[in-house]
Amino acid sequence: MDVPTDIPIRVDLYSDTITRPTLAMREYMCQAEVGDEQLGEDPTVNRLQDMVAELLGKEAALYLPSGTMCNQIAFCVHCQPGDEVIMDKTAHPLHYEGGGPTPLKGILIRTVDGERGVYSARQVEEALRERSRYNPRSRAISIEQTSNMGGGKCWPLETIREVCEVAHAHGMATHMDGARLLNAVVATGISAKAYAASLDSLWLDLSKGLGAPVGGVLAGSKAFIEEAWRYKQLLGGAMRQAGIIAAAGIYALEHHVERLAEDHENAKLLAQGLAEVPGIRIRPQDVETNIVFFDVTETGMTTQQFIDRARYEHGVRFSKMNGRVRAITHLDVTRQDIEQAIQAARTIVETPH
Amino acid sequence: MDVPTDIPIRVDLYSDTITRPTLAMREYMCQAEVGDEQLGEDPTVNRLQDMVAELLGKEAALYLPSGTMCNQIAFCVHCQPGDEVIMDKTAHPLHYEGGGPTPLKGILIRTVDGERGVYSARQVEEALRERSRYNPRSRAISIEQTSNMGGGKCWPLETIREVCEVAHAHGMATHMDGARLLNAVVATGISAKAYAASLDSLWLDLSKGLGAPVGGVLAGSKAFIEEAWRYKQLLGGAMRQAGIIAAAGIYALEHHVERLAEDHENAKLLAQGLAEVPGIRIRPQDVETNIVFFDVTETGMTTQQFIDRARYEHGVRFSKMNGRVRAITHLDVTRQDIEQAIQAARTIVETPH
Amino acid sequence: MDVPTDIPIRVDLYSDTITRPTLAMREYMCQAEVGDEQLGEDPTVNRLQDMVAELLGKEAALYLPSGTMCNQIAFCVHCQPGDEVIMDKTAHPLHYEGGGPTPLKGILIRTVDGERGVYSARQVEEALRERSRYNPRSRAISIEQTSNMGGGKCWPLETIREVCEVAHAHGMATHMDGARLLNAVVATGISAKAYAASLDSLWLDLSKGLGAPVGGVLAGSKAFIEEAWRYKQLLGGAMRQAGIIAAAGIYALEHHVERLAEDHENAKLLAQGLAEVPGIRIRPQDVETNIVFFDVTETGMTTQQFIDRARYEHGVRFSKMNGRVRAITHLDVTRQDIEQAIQAARTIVETPH
Amino acid sequence: MDVPTDIPIRVDLYSDTITRPTLAMREYMCQAEVGDEQLGEDPTVNRLQDMVAELLGKEAALYLPSGTMCNQIAFCVHCQPGDEVIMDKTAHPLHYEGGGPTPLKGILIRTVDGERGVYSARQVEEALRERSRYNPRSRAISIEQTSNMGGGKCWPLETIREVCEVAHAHGMATHMDGARLLNAVVATGISAKAYAASLDSLWLDLSKGLGAPVGGVLAGSKAFIEEAWRYKQLLGGAMRQAGIIAAAGIYALEHHVERLAEDHENAKLLAQGLAEVPGIRIRPQDVETNIVFFDVTETGMTTQQFIDRARYEHGVRFSKMNGRVRAITHLDVTRQDIEQAIQAARTIVETPH
Ligand SMILES: [Ca+2]
Ligand SMILES: [Ca+2]
Ligand SMILES: [Ca+2]
Ligand SMILES: [Ca+2]
Ligand SMILES: [Ca+2]
Ligand SMILES: [Ca+2]
Repeated sequence: MDVPTDIPIRVDLYSDTITRPTLAMREYMCQAEVGDEQLGEDPTVNRLQDMVAELLGKEAALYLPSGTMCNQIAFCVHCQPGDEVIMDKTAHPLHYEGGGPTPLKGILIRTVDGERGVYSARQVEEALRERSRYNPRSRAISIEQTSNMGGGKCWPLETIREVCEVAHAHGMATHMDGARLLNAVVATGISAKAYAASLDSLWLDLSKGLGAPVGGVLAGSKAFIEEAWRYKQLLGGAMRQAGIIAAAGIYALEHHVERLAEDHENAKLLAQGLAEVPGIRIRPQDVETNIVFFDVTETGMTTQQFIDRARYEHGVRFSKMNGRVRAITHLDVTRQDIEQAIQAARTIVETPH
Repeated sequence: MDVPTDIPIRVDLYSDTITRPTLAMREYMCQAEVGDEQLGEDPTVNRLQDMVAELLGKEAALYLPSGTMCNQIAFCVHCQPGDEVIMDKTAHPLHYEGGGPTPLKGILIRTVDGERGVYSARQVEEALRERSRYNPRSRAISIEQTSNMGGGKCWPLETIREVCEVAHAHGMATHMDGARLLNAVVATGISAKAYAASLDSLWLDLSKGLGAPVGGVLAGSKAFIEEAWRYKQLLGGAMRQAGIIAAAGIYALEHHVERLAEDHENAKLLAQGLAEVPGIRIRPQDVETNIVFFDVTETGMTTQQFIDRARYEHGVRFSKMNGRVRAITHLDVTRQDIEQAIQAARTIVETPH
Repeated sequence: MDVPTDIPIRVDLYSDTITRPTLAMREYMCQAEVGDEQLGEDPTVNRLQDMVAELLGKEAALYLPSGTMCNQIAFCVHCQPGDEVIMDKTAHPLHYEGGGPTPLKGILIRTVDGERGVYSARQVEEALRERSRYNPRSRAISIEQTSNMGGGKCWPLETIREVCEVAHAHGMATHMDGARLLNAVVATGISAKAYAASLDSLWLDLSKGLGAPVGGVLAGSKAFIEEAWRYKQLLGGAMRQAGIIAAAGIYALEHHVERLAEDHENAKLLAQGLAEVPGIRIRPQDVETNIVFFDVTETGMTTQQFIDRARYEHGVRFSKMNGRVRAITHLDVTRQDIEQAIQAARTIVETPH
Repeated sequence: MDVPTDIPIRVDLYSDTITRPTLAMREYMCQAEVGDEQLGEDPTVNRLQDMVAELLGKEAALYLPSGTMCNQIAFCVHCQPGDEVIMDKTAHPLHYEGGGPTPLKGILIRTVDGERGVYSARQVEEALRERSRYNPRSRAISIEQTSNMGGGKCWPLETIREVCEVAHAHGMATHMDGARLLNAVVATGISAKAYAASLDSLWLDLSKGLGAPVGGVLAGSKAFIEEAWRYKQLLGGAMRQAGIIAAAGIYALEHHVERLAEDHENAKLLAQGLAEVPGIRIRPQDVETNIVFFDVTETGMTTQQFIDRARYEHGVRFSKMNGRVRAITHLDVTRQDIEQAIQAARTIVETPH
């Protein structure tokens, strides 16, 4: 392209990970009381952990520097080398976590072919392995709420229950990658505790739609968290005066949960607007939360071409995932930003190079 | 069932692994000159290794106690933790090798959905991962010749070449699980060396159709075999006066290769005979080598029921794989045995309990 | 004991990890410009990394949530499973990092018996293994500057050079655990760059004497850091708007380095004061930086008894390491605190229970 | 050297691993009844396993292709990644098993400094780690009977009991590397069962002094052996008609145990003879079984020079271990061979080059 590449980003739909702490959040962080979290002496970390344990109805919780570490630790606690975790073929650990628990502990992942990231109890039954000397041991299942590659689809509560029932009946642990669990909570009105009830471990991400700069919180039984602490040390996730960043999580849980509804509304607006652009294929009825996928290949452009033009001609940043364009709404995206993004898409499609 | 369970096995189609050393092979073993193989002083082991290296057109070869160890070592030499091997979803390491290289070295396996175990260069291209910080590294491909779960299907030479070309173009290593490579050689008339030409590593199993009691031989470049030796020590595959059993491999390569044609003929006879039994679904034209799969569910029996009746009412042993009945012909199965097996199947189907 | 256990800590010599961010540091953090560090878009993280790379004379650097993760990643980048790292028997990864790189990647650690944590080139030569199929591969050496269990002893520059020369001559990588490298710099006047010159990788801890709440920075060649990024993702050390905490590191490097001299002076005062308490065995001349070890067993108390009485009768917190009492001076410890600690020790010793 | 290098080996004291099957043993092997051992259908393998389980007083046993695999599997069954095994600093897995269980499963080894390979209960207590989040978990101890690097020293029964008592009191598993356990049995008159009583797992090597060409047998509880089977599959130690080689083990246990006394006598003769050669330092009273270490450095030759001259001037093969010369007596070494070896040593020492 002959366009300048230094045009600033005006509307950033790349991911909800890019949310930046607000001024109020920063002030709250600045005043946080802190201590050495490894000694259990950071009151802010302790308070955040208690809040999340309470929110999810679990005995204990553990603050960690990332959602990836939450997943890694949960799988490492539940599984031994040669054990197998069942998850959807689109699940995040398979594609974005450096190989997930496999290089860390020799844990296998067995994929099932769900519907937009959501699989069924029956699929778990089919993926289960007979106990034998030859087989990996089926040892855990993992659910991603909401499903990122599934376009923010929410796992229905009933499906979670059924899947977990099968898993538990076969002695398997159940885990939820709750990167966007609170989006599902806000979208469906089902409480986090209800979603969490049949899970042995799950976590919340604080750095996505909630707007905190860093971290996730992993929850489970006391014994689970005690063992998780060992892995927190091993992986280098044990920090010191982490209350500074944990404070942002407290602030986010207190102020940024309900507003996720705006992100969902914006995502729907975006989907509806894009649906009217000729050549863009999208199903607005699939948008349940804050993620929007669409296909531009009928316009004659490749996905990458569309993304580059949006970025460098209009300052609108999308991302590419699985061959499609992905947009995620969040705290730093307004309704006007959405309108600007729709207009940019329309202009791109109507103005071929 | 109310039948006696101590009826002896008269026709054993369970697997070609059950072949027993012949008297002549035993005599040959008994006279083998031996030494300490770890010191390179076992002349019989050395000779077997040279024979296989020559047969496969590779610089060097290594005698190992099993085909599983051949696979494990090859993957461990080619890959580091977090690297990924592409193979068919039916491949043996995924289902019968205790988790394959994953628990041993944190290696991931990415499955492709081939046709009876045979996948295409295009499928490799699609399974390849972009290089990034988030991704496992696509590092090797593995081919199973012949495909066990694919019913003994032979990988066409051209497909092997194409798949390896794509792999090499992306800096990946190419490996063949040659558990039944010589069956493919005998069935197609293509030399083992031709099949091996585009592969960085491959192995022969001596204990299946070839009739040796123990072992496989892994071949590759000198550097590959030198590193394989390290893993032979680590895994406990380094033996001492292994010439005793290696001798059986020499004998097998000298006397039992061409006769694999009989096994193939017997397999075809079995398939044709079973095709005439009402309710048994089978495609005789799919039988290329010594493996026969068939489906009995239209008879109203489950697969397991059929297998149990064959075993305990007729002394005919089949195995179950992937929900179907599997029969494998081999050195210890005669044409009369095949007729007996067909007759047994017919009687079972025609005599409901 | 019958003493109240809720007496507050007045003088905290437990570790320099317990330093809390100052008000000025908090304000600096609060105003930090941030972005998504995984996308390379966090300007504050980028600036901190550049500062450390420059300080250490390396091509590149990587911000990580802890010093433990710096060590884990460095060993994982340098070594493959079955490789061996040589380090002193007192080294931190062996005792405080959940098993160090062994559970993460199957890396062996071979200990040498140094003098207060400092070993010699000759000891490296003796610990090197001959190349063979049977042996682990000697692959890296690790130096801890200053040596924690060695009482804050500084590795002499010449010793570092000699040890690294032997290592490099045998194809090994050289790594420095620089948890307290800047203490050595301030104590000896030797620049960090000079210390770093013969090392392939090393890191600084920001959360100890420097007073930042969280994090360390790992430095090395561009290729090393690119590979380190893969492990940062894998271990879950990749954060998002980490500039908030990285800012504290920048502030610390700009304002808290030279003042480490005060900590060293305080440590010497403490040692001299304790040396005059009857029954306390200590060698003040061994105190080179901010760590003080002493032995109280001649007083008739156990180490734990002494520590408990200091804590619960006087509000002075020491720690126990290797059977001795350890005191570490830092940003939050004043000269008056030191006098109070000495007085407490004297009172405890003179007032038997 | 200018000597011819093709002089045949006349007296081979390199190791008892080099023993070759006798004619009678070969005939016994040749007639062995065999089946598929993975299906539990090899009667000879089954019988050998039963014999060893009985001999050692354990519930079950498992035939494996090597002693190294016996060790690897035992540690893998007893330990998880991050667990630690305590063993003597001279123990075989540390130096001759490709890194031992560390690369296979991330298991740490903590060495203690025993007396000729034999350590004490107190040393175990000192090596035990406190339970914490930071520490590896002390999980097993391993005893090598007899100690190879310790010059064939026998672990006293009482020491075994004490060491195991401490280990069990701390929830640790106890394992014996019984590579030469039967040498200890014959030398001391203490039964194998008595030695085995306080051990959770142990194994016999068949291929050393017993003279079988291949294999070891690992014994323990039923649950232990069931789990060991999983690793046998994973490591590739599951063979097929292994009865052929297992038969040699049966023959050896029936015919070659008591004759180990001759090897011990020969070893003592060798030690006494060498003690009279000027410049050779040796303690004949240390020779308890079939291993003899001696030091030739006072002769002015290096260890390697002495070994090379013995080999190429006299056809006497010694090995080098830990800087000394090692000789091992065995089935294929006669009293005349010993005299020849002594004479060779004398000639070498008296005839400087
Ligand atoms: Ca964020
Ligand atoms: Ca905006
Ligand atoms: Ca066989
Ligand atoms: Ca027959
Ligand atoms: Ca701090
Ligand atoms: Ca032998």
